[in-house]
Amino acid sequence: MTRARIGLIGTGFIGRTHAIALSAVGAVFADIEAPVRELLADTTEAAARAAAGALGFARATGDWRELVADPAVDVVDICTPNHLHRDMALAAIGAGKHVWCEKPLANTAREAREIAAAADAAGVRHLMGFNYICNPLLQVARDMIAAGELGDVYAFRGSYLEDYMSDPAVPWSWRCDRALAGSGALADLGSHLINLGHFLLGAVARVNGRLQVVHRTRRDPATGATRAVENEDIARALIEFASGVPGTFEVSRVATGLKCGLAFAVFGTRGALEFDQERMNELRWYDAAAGGARRGFRTLLAGPEHPDYRPFCPAPGHGLGYNDLKVIEARNLLRAVAGGAPAWPDFHEGARVQAVMEAIEASHASGAWTDVGA
Amino acid sequence: MTRARIGLIGTGFIGRTHAIALSAVGAVFADIEAPVRELLADTTEAAARAAAGALGFARATGDWRELVADPAVDVVDICTPNHLHRDMALAAIGAGKHVWCEKPLANTAREAREIAAAADAAGVRHLMGFNYICNPLLQVARDMIAAGELGDVYAFRGSYLEDYMSDPAVPWSWRCDRALAGSGALADLGSHLINLGHFLLGAVARVNGRLQVVHRTRRDPATGATRAVENEDIARALIEFASGVPGTFEVSRVATGLKCGLAFAVFGTRGALEFDQERMNELRWYDAAAGGARRGFRTLLAGPEHPDYRPFCPAPGHGLGYNDLKVIEARNLLRAVAGGAPAWPDFHEGARVQAVMEAIEASHASGAWTDVGA
Amino acid sequence: MTRARIGLIGTGFIGRTHAIALSAVGAVFADIEAPVRELLADTTEAAARAAAGALGFARATGDWRELVADPAVDVVDICTPNHLHRDMALAAIGAGKHVWCEKPLANTAREAREIAAAADAAGVRHLMGFNYICNPLLQVARDMIAAGELGDVYAFRGSYLEDYMSDPAVPWSWRCDRALAGSGALADLGSHLINLGHFLLGAVARVNGRLQVVHRTRRDPATGATRAVENEDIARALIEFASGVPGTFEVSRVATGLKCGLAFAVFGTRGALEFDQERMNELRWYDAAAGGARRGFRTLLAGPEHPDYRPFCPAPGHGLGYNDLKVIEARNLLRAVAGGAPAWPDFHEGARVQAVMEAIEASHASGAWTDVGA
Amino acid sequence: MTRARIGLIGTGFIGRTHAIALSAVGAVFADIEAPVRELLADTTEAAARAAAGALGFARATGDWRELVADPAVDVVDICTPNHLHRDMALAAIGAGKHVWCEKPLANTAREAREIAAAADAAGVRHLMGFNYICNPLLQVARDMIAAGELGDVYAFRGSYLEDYMSDPAVPWSWRCDRALAGSGALADLGSHLINLGHFLLGAVARVNGRLQVVHRTRRDPATGATRAVENEDIARALIEFASGVPGTFEVSRVATGLKCGLAFAVFGTRGALEFDQERMNELRWYDAAAGGARRGFRTLLAGPEHPDYRPFCPAPGHGLGYNDLKVIEARNLLRAVAGGAPAWPDFHEGARVQAVMEAIEASHASGAWTDVGA
Repeated sequence: MTRARIGLIGTGFIGRTHAIALSAVGAVFADIEAPVRELLADTTEAAARAAAGALGFARATGDWRELVADPAVDVVDICTPNHLHRDMALAAIGAGKHVWCEKPLANTAREAREIAAAADAAGVRHLMGFNYICNPLLQVARDMIAAGELGDVYAFRGSYLEDYMSDPAVPWSWRCDRALAGSGALADLGSHLINLGHFLLGAVARVNGRLQVVHRTRRDPATGATRAVENEDIARALIEFASGVPGTFEVSRVATGLKCGLAFAVFGTRGALEFDQERMNELRWYDAAAGGARRGFRTLLAGPEHPDYRPFCPAPGHGLGYNDLKVIEARNLLRAVAGGAPAWPDFHEGARVQAVMEAIEASHASGAWTDVGA
Repeated sequence: MTRARIGLIGTGFIGRTHAIALSAVGAVFADIEAPVRELLADTTEAAARAAAGALGFARATGDWRELVADPAVDVVDICTPNHLHRDMALAAIGAGKHVWCEKPLANTAREAREIAAAADAAGVRHLMGFNYICNPLLQVARDMIAAGELGDVYAFRGSYLEDYMSDPAVPWSWRCDRALAGSGALADLGSHLINLGHFLLGAVARVNGRLQVVHRTRRDPATGATRAVENEDIARALIEFASGVPGTFEVSRVATGLKCGLAFAVFGTRGALEFDQERMNELRWYDAAAGGARRGFRTLLAGPEHPDYRPFCPAPGHGLGYNDLKVIEARNLLRAVAGGAPAWPDFHEGARVQAVMEAIEASHASGAWTDVGA
Repeated sequence: MTRARIGLIGTGFIGRTHAIALSAVGAVFADIEAPVRELLADTTEAAARAAAGALGFARATGDWRELVADPAVDVVDICTPNHLHRDMALAAIGAGKHVWCEKPLANTAREAREIAAAADAAGVRHLMGFNYICNPLLQVARDMIAAGELGDVYAFRGSYLEDYMSDPAVPWSWRCDRALAGSGALADLGSHLINLGHFLLGAVARVNGRLQVVHRTRRDPATGATRAVENEDIARALIEFASGVPGTFEVSRVATGLKCGLAFAVFGTRGALEFDQERMNELRWYDAAAGGARRGFRTLLAGPEHPDYRPFCPAPGHGLGYNDLKVIEARNLLRAVAGGAPAWPDFHEGARVQAVMEAIEASHASGAWTDVGA
Repeated sequence: MTRARIGLIGTGFIGRTHAIALSAVGAVFADIEAPVRELLADTTEAAARAAAGALGFARATGDWRELVADPAVDVVDICTPNHLHRDMALAAIGAGKHVWCEKPLANTAREAREIAAAADAAGVRHLMGFNYICNPLLQVARDMIAAGELGDVYAFRGSYLEDYMSDPAVPWSWRCDRALAGSGALADLGSHLINLGHFLLGAVARVNGRLQVVHRTRRDPATGATRAVENEDIARALIEFASGVPGTFEVSRVATGLKCGLAFAVFGTRGALEFDQERMNELRWYDAAAGGARRGFRTLLAGPEHPDYRPFCPAPGHGLGYNDLKVIEARNLLRAVAGGAPAWPDFHEGARVQAVMEAIEASHASGAWTDVGA
């Protein structure tokens, strides 16, 4: 097996996460050849060169189009601000590269669908950067639901609450600009939550949502002037899965005190599950069959008994971290690139997530239940 | 000060809770004369006599109208199934008695408003049995919000999740009968949650709700036959307070694994609060001002520093229980009856809670945002 | 059945707890006649009269010897500072009264044994005020151990940590005086922990302990002068039960931040239990048989499935409080007084607890393992 | 700066952890050149070759002495069973290599001191593999204690509880053999706990300990026969730091249900800290100054405000994992090797940890308080 050669675009928060994952994945997973950190693109060549040095990439460029065209790059890894994803993904697909793209895939579902179709047509592998669902315990959750361990599932509660824009003194950034970021909390956090819902219970079919802008202006550090925030700080929605299961979504970037509160509960006739990413090594399971005086939620502490934990550590309870989730995701990508089955969540899932976000926005405007577009 | 003489109607779950509270309240609160447990009414005289013996009441009757008319009764305490509340309350008011009534006050908001108006007109004291808000820590929460310790509050998440009807084998009961119970989870659990929302953040103005019946039939133990469940197992709603603060409500009687999950989170510019009745002696507070490397949610463990705790125990962290909340509620009633200011939540609040429930039901039918009736 | 007539001596923290329990126990437990709160003694007649009014006692006296001699008193309930317990208990026994005594029974094990022997000889019922073990969940723990649900138990960790004297500004009180209080944290907190150990695993046979005085002087509020603290703030011990099971005890009255940290863990070949009084409605159980990918500690939330919970509330998870434990203890006393079997923990247990405390003190002095006296 | 060339010996649990850390450390820390994974030694050349391929090492050998002598190796990284550490470390030092060694450094303190002296004499860098103290939150704990944020510290409680040998069916292994492993739970878990105590509060001066073998024999998989377990499953000790602060240590490899229970509490006049590795991203802090009605333990959730977190992730609360601790440790090593100050915990600390373990064993034998050897 040959080593996949990666071209990484973007070295902010998530770009560094990718670089760390790419550096570790080969040592963690015995079946994975360590990928080659071949080429790194950033906004200037100097920035790219510095980042390449720090992150272990062989070469650097200030022009992402060069990276996309580079014959020594097998996989284009897109970690830039949201509005750039579309053009980069299409260019990479056009160059016949596999594509690993951070969410959102595009700023509209229609564009996202076009990208997914283009990727399929080009025969390349494509993967979205939805790392949270790579958690061994969320794989357990999915498997328990699929195996009927919760009986008939009939209710879902999902939320993703952070507070990184809770303080009104947090300055205006591209995340507040509809043209650059698309929606606000929905795009940044909601995309993960929707993907999680899909992962556990299948497609979301209908929504009735409401958006809220808490801080309507912020100071633009570029000008020092006050500038309008153009997208929502909080989104809430009543939802219904295609399976008929109802539920709720709530996302916030102003949930004072919460740092990574991606949480859910699933209820069924035979049991329930609860999870909170802030305690990502714990999955709470209630087994209705273990009833009477011995009933109670059981805390499953992540361990080698759960999928994809053992390669990190053979001992239970020692704790995986956020970056480890990205290592698992990188493994999923590299397996697919090496000729394995397509990985999930692919770009079609990226488009479906976008469609749910758009339906929530549309229902906010209409005040009515809204079907998720095909 | 003379001792208030109580006439209790109903000796199920909540009737016994009242009786226990009435037996203890005098010893707990130094300013309260122990009330006289004067007369107890149940469905038959034999049942009433047995219950009176067990619960320390002096006399018993099988006819609640006798109790209402009894000149030795100062306060009529209504702990019967929902559909009986209205007639009993009106009769008690008509007889010039003070009235303590379990929720819901009536099965419609219009009727509830009539009862509240009648009570005011008669000049009697009236109190709803919303015990959870008597928790010292919820009094702290209310006070912190009112004092601006959370800054400008802009978001609320509230839920009350239990699983007492989660098992499809739970038999049909009056709670499943619209004529007897009114709504389902809304009336039983939602009423407490709505009252809690009012307690913390004022009136709810608009809702957009959705109801769900999970188990559509249950076995009727009276006949052995299958019988339709006529009200919802789960209700979810997007809400908006009159103050403009948006939020969510979710209530369920089929939330497998949850036993008394009355929970909320409130977010503001300067902080946040979280609470869960299953850990009723803990209030989690995030102080945004205590930031940087020492930031974090602080767990306030109930103690004598908090309102109404010290009379139970001078030492912190020793733990109050569910029944203690009813003791505080009884104290509130008895103070009012003894000539103090009217107690809250009064029957007007009972009517407002009912109006929110009706608006949620109406919005379920229409699929649209619905104003809460006056 | 006739109603037991109670004479209560002392109206501090624990005296009020007793009075509240006595007021509620009849309503809570159907098989218990509400006891008569007959006579209350305090340091002066005026104080006693005021307390009797507040706590619902019929009569008052400033002389505890009058109370002990009163023919209308069936049970003498001793809630005074430690050094008075012995004389009061012996006087009550001498008068043929049943005795309910707060811990410690005496300030030496020898005295405690004498009292227990006198009580037996007089044929009266006697009960120590060890309320924590009345917790339904601790009854479950005891039953699980006894039934072998943990397999062979081989390790115990117990602690009781509070911080009521953590602040050096807390003034000197009788608790710091060896003549009045006996030992410090050991007598106040250790007695409960030792009793808990006995309750779960039988007699403690050997100890190796170490005492620590953290704050060597405190300000005496009576004189304004600094005064020596004569007993320990912290005690730690390696222990061994008569069964051969080893373990540890740790008690502290200066455990900054802890308010009622009576906690233990028990380990066996088939499982483990963990408990913390600060979350007194939760018992954590690990079932080694429920292993593999579904293993984990299960949180048993107190409910009517557990002993003595249902009389308080038929619904699970609603929460018992500290005062409810004393209600269960009062029930145990009243059953015994009404002709039932002797109650436990009786005065012999009080003496055994004292003996363990003395062995810890002796081992502190010698630095060696010390057998607990017979 | 040149890249350090690593020779890794041993590819079991901890050897793989080292390899993963070495693969990631360069990408995580901007100031660290990615080390060269130069040479890997295992018990056979075939095993070494396979592991080198999986873990990204350039070359492999079946003879660790070849590795130690290899001129292209700058750092010898020892991850073998305990009894091999001494010879390997001495050989590496003899060859002038820097040495990174897993605990315990040797099976006796005397030998460990000799190794430390040899390393100093040779002028090489040396680091012990005590990864837990690399946790950003434990660095915060140490800093808070050092800065006096807890006031005068007067009590410590430490434990490290796991259950990997709880099941009597777990087969005999080299860990049960005194000649190969030295002590049992003490060497494997106690070494970490003692190091943690040293890290937070300085040297341990005196101990009074007790060892316990729970399962006295296990089945030897090599022979199928029952074989004696030669070292302790549980160790408990009363301790005293050189500063005069008393405390307790407890370690167990048979603590049914616990998976990585390295936990401590520290109490001082102004506050307290609590930590549990099973929730390694949380540090609980009680600030006695933030008292009254707002007092409570605050949960510090790991974030970029804490030392060494930001290089992993700029967002708080996202969660570090066990392997990330080893990355920080590797950074500490590589900084020292690159010419920085010596790293800690060095081999002298390895020897001091060993001395505490020996004192606990000696006090078990004598039943008396025992000074820790120099």
